Amino acid sequence: MTYTPLTDSHLDALRQIVGADRLSTRSADLDLHARDQSFHEPRPPDVVLWPETTAEVSAIVSFANAQRIPVTAWGAGSSLEGNPIPVHGGILLDFTRMNKVLNVRAEDFQVDVQPGVTRIELNKQLARFGLFFPPDPGADATIGGMVANNSSGIKTIKYGATKDNVLRLEVVKADGEVIQVGSRARKDSSGYDLLHLFVGSEGTLGLITEATLKLRPLPDKFSAVLAAFPDIESVIQTVVDIVGMGLDPSALEFLDSETAHALNLDKNLGLVEAPHVLMEFNGSSDADGVAEARSICEANGATDIRTATGQEERNKLWQARHHTYETLLRLHPGKAQQIVDVCVPISHYPEIVAFCAQLMAEKQLLGYKFGHAGDGNLHMNIIYDQSNPAEFALVKSVNALIVEHAIDLEGTSTGEHGTGIGKRTFALKQHGAAINTMRLIKNTLDPNGILNPGKIFLD
Amino acid sequence: MTYTPLTDSHLDALRQIVGADRLSTRSADLDLHARDQSFHEPRPPDVVLWPETTAEVSAIVSFANAQRIPVTAWGAGSSLEGNPIPVHGGILLDFTRMNKVLNVRAEDFQVDVQPGVTRIELNKQLARFGLFFPPDPGADATIGGMVANNSSGIKTIKYGATKDNVLRLEVVKADGEVIQVGSRARKDSSGYDLLHLFVGSEGTLGLITEATLKLRPLPDKFSAVLAAFPDIESVIQTVVDIVGMGLDPSALEFLDSETAHALNLDKNLGLVEAPHVLMEFNGSSDADGVAEARSICEANGATDIRTATGQEERNKLWQARHHTYETLLRLHPGKAQQIVDVCVPISHYPEIVAFCAQLMAEKQLLGYKFGHAGDGNLHMNIIYDQSNPAEFALVKSVNALIVEHAIDLEGTSTGEHGTGIGKRTFALKQHGAAINTMRLIKNTLDPNGILNPGKIFLD
Repeated sequence: MTYTPLTDSHLDALRQIVGADRLSTRSADLDLHARDQSFHEPRPPDVVLWPETTAEVSAIVSFANAQRIPVTAWGAGSSLEGNPIPVHGGILLDFTRMNKVLNVRAEDFQVDVQPGVTRIELNKQLARFGLFFPPDPGADATIGGMVANNSSGIKTIKYGATKDNVLRLEVVKADGEVIQVGSRARKDSSGYDLLHLFVGSEGTLGLITEATLKLRPLPDKFSAVLAAFPDIESVIQTVVDIVGMGLDPSALEFLDSETAHALNLDKNLGLVEAPHVLMEFNGSSDADGVAEARSICEANGATDIRTATGQEERNKLWQARHHTYETLLRLHPGKAQQIVDVCVPISHYPEIVAFCAQLMAEKQLLGYKFGHAGDGNLHMNIIYDQSNPAEFALVKSVNALIVEHAIDLEGTSTGEHGTGIGKRTFALKQHGAAINTMRLIKNTLDPNGILNPGKIFLD
Repeated sequence: MTYTPLTDSHLDALRQIVGADRLSTRSADLDLHARDQSFHEPRPPDVVLWPETTAEVSAIVSFANAQRIPVTAWGAGSSLEGNPIPVHGGILLDFTRMNKVLNVRAEDFQVDVQPGVTRIELNKQLARFGLFFPPDPGADATIGGMVANNSSGIKTIKYGATKDNVLRLEVVKADGEVIQVGSRARKDSSGYDLLHLFVGSEGTLGLITEATLKLRPLPDKFSAVLAAFPDIESVIQTVVDIVGMGLDPSALEFLDSETAHALNLDKNLGLVEAPHVLMEFNGSSDADGVAEARSICEANGATDIRTATGQEERNKLWQARHHTYETLLRLHPGKAQQIVDVCVPISHYPEIVAFCAQLMAEKQLLGYKFGHAGDGNLHMNIIYDQSNPAEFALVKSVNALIVEHAIDLEGTSTGEHGTGIGKRTFALKQHGAAINTMRLIKNTLDPNGILNPGKIFLD
């Protein structure tokens, strides 16, 4: 694809759509939209626009399509795979002014939102109805970004990923046409599931201008169990037993001994420096799940078991998992973290963990392993020196080896961060011939390739 | 689209692929594949093939595509919207010989199956692992059919529809190419979600030759509550309160007073002839949910409450919901039933129920209303005389009015039976411009329109 360089007359036309005060070519604004939270090379857009209505978004995209100018959507900039970096420049649409909670339909357990509202603000507004939107990627992402990247995180084992919690989207297509996909019915078997085609497409098939989300009642019962094990095999046997007993945990996390060590240093938690399972239950009583979970942990040889009943105790125990990234930042000042994100069938979790450990030892790198073990999703934060190109190259090659091994284990190159820029090279290995079907759909829905070019597919 | 009439030389070529013993043009075989469980006009295919391997399916489809011969997939013939009726004739692929459970991965809570295995046979084989595949449409459908139609049913409120319980598919495209979509990872953010594009596409985008399904532990704790209410508003307030309290029922059903009357006649259940809520819980104890559900029912004015603890008592109570269709058949011998299937946001459930009741009174028809109230899914079985064309036309027009009203209430033309033949006329009203995007995708993936023509879209 070749794109048209942005000219002054393009800028004049765009000012006609959004007004001069919601268009900027100032370098401060461009630089703010040049990078996300990943290590990918920054690239500023040529212009930033702040649309306020679907009609404006439609007019901008329609104009850009006619002129062959790239359009990249932007939420909070919190993604981890370069997903919103405008690698071909052009127009960046910052959705933060479309941030309204439009309609809380408490009786329907639904809410209509604009894409720029953030997860934490949304959940604040929902709390007064006793409801919440469960997907929790950690960062305070916008809902539009969460839908575009199919975010998930800690609560996915119970509540599903973002894709499982979206009912309906309003989407602006590459030609500017506005369509509605999905519906406000909780079950819908009519026509093709276009909803899930747009969810997770990272703004490459259409731009989300409104979403109807599924809500859940806010839990008011909390319990948690944190247990140390002699090895990763007993960690995973515990995970399998917890799920197999139907205990329905709201989180089922893994922490390796290095992470336990880091948490001890930073927070003085006094953890056994061994692999841990951390789980939470939101059952029908404060103590729900604790006794059963404890006995499963004991049967699998846990060497240390801590339990928590009620919200306050649970919060204390959860210090061991929240803010891992910040803990590692504090322990390694001035260093960067490459976040590995792979997902495998649970039975292969011990193998991918062992593979990572061996690779770290072999390459003399430091990596902290943790993740959403109940889903088979493993992260590893590899500490490295950003100013050392050789070390950065080594870390990238190690990440590639892990991703390829995860695919060999019938897993995926990305459990929750998306394909973005960095996972494109693995798409053919993972998807085989299906990648051609994906590209066919991209070419059909965005024939000029203006929507977030340089993502999902290698150019 | 125009199709090539099947000739003897085509038949010879097909015999080369599957052998003479797995190809039939006998009228008995053609007639067996001419109709599903719906009222739609039967149409026999020109030939029935029984493939046994993906390679055979690929060769057949590739040949049919080159020759412009329609190909329609067939599972158990239990669908309710004409979905597998070969309305343009051609080749019918009967998948019942591809019925193997390939690999139970108990530790991963997954199973790999061929599309022709039926739900009941699969769950029988899974039971020895303490696992099950939750979607339950009532009929003993094949898994391929359930995936193609995105079946759901009674347990959807807790476990989701079929689309929520499929991880990976092997699909034969219209050109015969075999692709893998999704993966065995429980979470996957790589590339586009082609999996959900094929789920529910009713064999119009590709043919499913293998599926990896998500499994759950078999529940061993059961409780149930059946309660009568003075009106539909208190029924729905009860549904909202049950969900809002986080009680996580595994079923949350509605029965109207006519249905209660029918059940009394057929099974002597002694029910109050009033609207009922029937719910089930599979919690952490046999009594889980019962006390809370009872007090919610009482608070909403229930006039009769029956509770059941443990599997045996629960089964007795559930007589009120299972086999409704058969009960109505027995009460109305020789009559046909038109099954309405719409779904609306829960807050609109009272309105759609009242609309149906008023319409039945106005048109002097008899309709039994029941459904998956927790999902907003309403069914009504309208009793009519198949030999009376005027009555049949009236019933069809009444169904259309109900569907249109459901769409006006921000619902869908079909909650679980699919678009098939009968819901095509409502697709434009429901989907608006998005129907063009669906058609664009159909034309891209099946340019010759050979896959199950005459479904999803009006010709």
